[in-house]
Amino acid sequence: MSAKRQLKLGFMLHGVGMGWGDWRHPDAEPNASTNFAYYRKQAQLAEAAKFDFLFVADSVFITEKSSPHYLNRFEPLTILSALAGATSHIGLVATLTASYSEPFNVARQFASLDHISGGRAGWNVVTSWLEGSAENYSKSKHLAHDTRYRLAGEYLDVVQGLWDSWEDDALVHDKQSGVFFDPTKLHTLNHKGEFFQVKGPLNIARSAQGQPVIFQAGASEDGKNFAARRSDAIFVHHENIDDGKTYYQDIKTRAAAFGRDPDQLFILPGIRPVIGSTEEEAERKYQEFANLTSIENALSMLGRPFNDYDFLQHDLDAPFPDVGAHGANSNQSTSGKILAVARAENLTLRQTALRFATPRTDFVGTPVQVADALQRWLEERGSDGFVVNVSLPRELEVFVETVVPILQERGIYRTEYEGETFRESLGIPAPANRYSHAQIADAAE
Amino acid sequence: MSAKRQLKLGFMLHGVGMGWGDWRHPDAEPNASTNFAYYRKQAQLAEAAKFDFLFVADSVFITEKSSPHYLNRFEPLTILSALAGATSHIGLVATLTASYSEPFNVARQFASLDHISGGRAGWNVVTSWLEGSAENYSKSKHLAHDTRYRLAGEYLDVVQGLWDSWEDDALVHDKQSGVFFDPTKLHTLNHKGEFFQVKGPLNIARSAQGQPVIFQAGASEDGKNFAARRSDAIFVHHENIDDGKTYYQDIKTRAAAFGRDPDQLFILPGIRPVIGSTEEEAERKYQEFANLTSIENALSMLGRPFNDYDFLQHDLDAPFPDVGAHGANSNQSTSGKILAVARAENLTLRQTALRFATPRTDFVGTPVQVADALQRWLEERGSDGFVVNVSLPRELEVFVETVVPILQERGIYRTEYEGETFRESLGIPAPANRYSHAQIADAAE
Repeated sequence: MSAKRQLKLGFMLHGVGMGWGDWRHPDAEPNASTNFAYYRKQAQLAEAAKFDFLFVADSVFITEKSSPHYLNRFEPLTILSALAGATSHIGLVATLTASYSEPFNVARQFASLDHISGGRAGWNVVTSWLEGSAENYSKSKHLAHDTRYRLAGEYLDVVQGLWDSWEDDALVHDKQSGVFFDPTKLHTLNHKGEFFQVKGPLNIARSAQGQPVIFQAGASEDGKNFAARRSDAIFVHHENIDDGKTYYQDIKTRAAAFGRDPDQLFILPGIRPVIGSTEEEAERKYQEFANLTSIENALSMLGRPFNDYDFLQHDLDAPFPDVGAHGANSNQSTSGKILAVARAENLTLRQTALRFATPRTDFVGTPVQVADALQRWLEERGSDGFVVNVSLPRELEVFVETVVPILQERGIYRTEYEGETFRESLGIPAPANRYSHAQIADAAE
Repeated sequence: MSAKRQLKLGFMLHGVGMGWGDWRHPDAEPNASTNFAYYRKQAQLAEAAKFDFLFVADSVFITEKSSPHYLNRFEPLTILSALAGATSHIGLVATLTASYSEPFNVARQFASLDHISGGRAGWNVVTSWLEGSAENYSKSKHLAHDTRYRLAGEYLDVVQGLWDSWEDDALVHDKQSGVFFDPTKLHTLNHKGEFFQVKGPLNIARSAQGQPVIFQAGASEDGKNFAARRSDAIFVHHENIDDGKTYYQDIKTRAAAFGRDPDQLFILPGIRPVIGSTEEEAERKYQEFANLTSIENALSMLGRPFNDYDFLQHDLDAPFPDVGAHGANSNQSTSGKILAVARAENLTLRQTALRFATPRTDFVGTPVQVADALQRWLEERGSDGFVVNVSLPRELEVFVETVVPILQERGIYRTEYEGETFRESLGIPAPANRYSHAQIADAAE
């Protein structure tokens, strides 16, 4: 086994690609987002290539302006449960909002997925940022940004507390005496907080990995603290490696300040590799995708993190307009980044829209160039790995067949899974049950 | 194909059997309730025997007094999603409470299951009756009985409305012009009711069967009206065929009064067959199960529909005590039935507890006797079929190998599935989308 630091790789599982363009490509399958056979094939391909996990994004509000990958898609827990039976080692990470669901139900569903998959569940904890979402949930008003994170923290307290309802040896199953469980090892949470009152216990035992792995995707100040303190992995987006390094340093420092081992928190930027047999072919492929998005659709996508702001009212070829306030209580981190890039590079509205509609990062090139870029980010501590997001079905195959073998040859990516559970593959321990005697004895020392 | 009326058969999928006794049997697998391989095997066996559907029960509140099959179990939607990929024709019916969940999330999850399974989802709509449930959901008080059904009706309005968000031909996917969908065929629900305000639209299209099949299990007056008006199938429990016939006539009359075709509503009592190669062997098997439940556990189970009432405080050998009020806002139909049987037959508390701990119905006997009983209930209109609930893993195999062939030979049970979707197998049409032009033209005639 190599002593080199290993790349963690996730695969973003979605159907029609991102944005308004990908589905129009001649090779795209426009119904793929609700096609189980398609998802299963992609999942099995990713597992054959030893990816750490599958990642399913989510959102809970659409309008007729939403882009195709939002409009018609599987609910994440449902599709990942279906894929649990079709895979054996790959982690299964579902995005689920803490803003509009009941922690008791969510704790049960993730615990069930964790049992079904033999300990491979992960939860990407998000707080919904589209203001319209509230209208799908009998709420008159969307929560303010800082309240959302306070709620998410309490929500996670409840869910993780429920996951510990049963100590690992609580179910004794003594048929002779008729004792099904040891009542001293079944624990009632009795949570009474600012947002939730949840008694418990949960009606499902702990799984092979103790508890599902926690992901976080926030990038605002609140989001970064939440992630550094509570998550096992962070899904982020960066413009370039310098941004990545700054963020990486920041988060790892925060994690250490919270008393955590920074090496047990993985920072995983999303990337969209475009691979060609030559640099020219890769560039041609990238342009082909970029040309599929009209300026109207690019503007509509740009409006989403600004709370569906209508950019069409502005001059396309004037400097990017002053609309920061629209993102303040919506997606702060994305709207803030768009503003910063537009200002720093003096972009017009049109240039900004096209730039963000088809992101152009380090990962367009030949297999060796892409592998070089991945390795550089890893070695220079811009990330601990990546969430790979491809535009077309066959692009995963290209990545797996051409880039993965180079990474393996260089000794920075596994050739076999390290264990059976997701935590074992990641190399992070199963958390001890908060109520277990061993745990209590440790704390008393 | 036979012209005889056909039995509909569901299989109740659970792990450790029911109540306090089954798990103690030497052949029982005490961990089965969270064992995916076990569920998959049972599901595939039921599908090979052409069962109409798998049924997963549920509850959302436990205490240390709850019996083993409640304590540690899969969440229904999660396990059925996992089984969707492991089966191809059998219906997948998940129980989910309308009392403690968000209709937008539930609509999405069932629609996803319906897509994953190729149109095989069913939803058993229940209202939670255990008062403690409220404490798992940040609610100070459990809803009153009549309010629960009003809420369930509105909840179903919202979910079914969301399921029609997209007309069947809304997703046009015209790559050339860039038109992903026809905006005139995407519909915003804008529901504003007593309990819910849900805007929509739903972010997933309709499935191959239009909408999931609706089950209902209520047996109170409110429950019967709800079921007769809104459900495609009803899961009930009867003491004997006379009760079954009375109920059957009642529900079918109500359905007709609501303007429905009574033949498109299936009444399916739960049964627990115990099959032996001789009558004596069957009887011995039944007694073996009955003896596994202690009187203390039988009393604890008896207390559940009376809002976890503690029956231990009463004289076991005195007549059944006067505790009806404890069931009034809990499980009215079950507590009422227990009271009625105890009074009618002059049972002591001990006799009542043992009677309900291991129900003894028409379905204990040889394969021919059990087939005779099933046929008699069908032909005398005591039911349209059954939900088969077995105590041990191998009891399903016994039923499939010995009883099913007799039913098939008699021409009252299928030898092949009639279609691909659950609705096709049941012989009920896919509902037209409420917004479709054909539908609107029909209504105007």
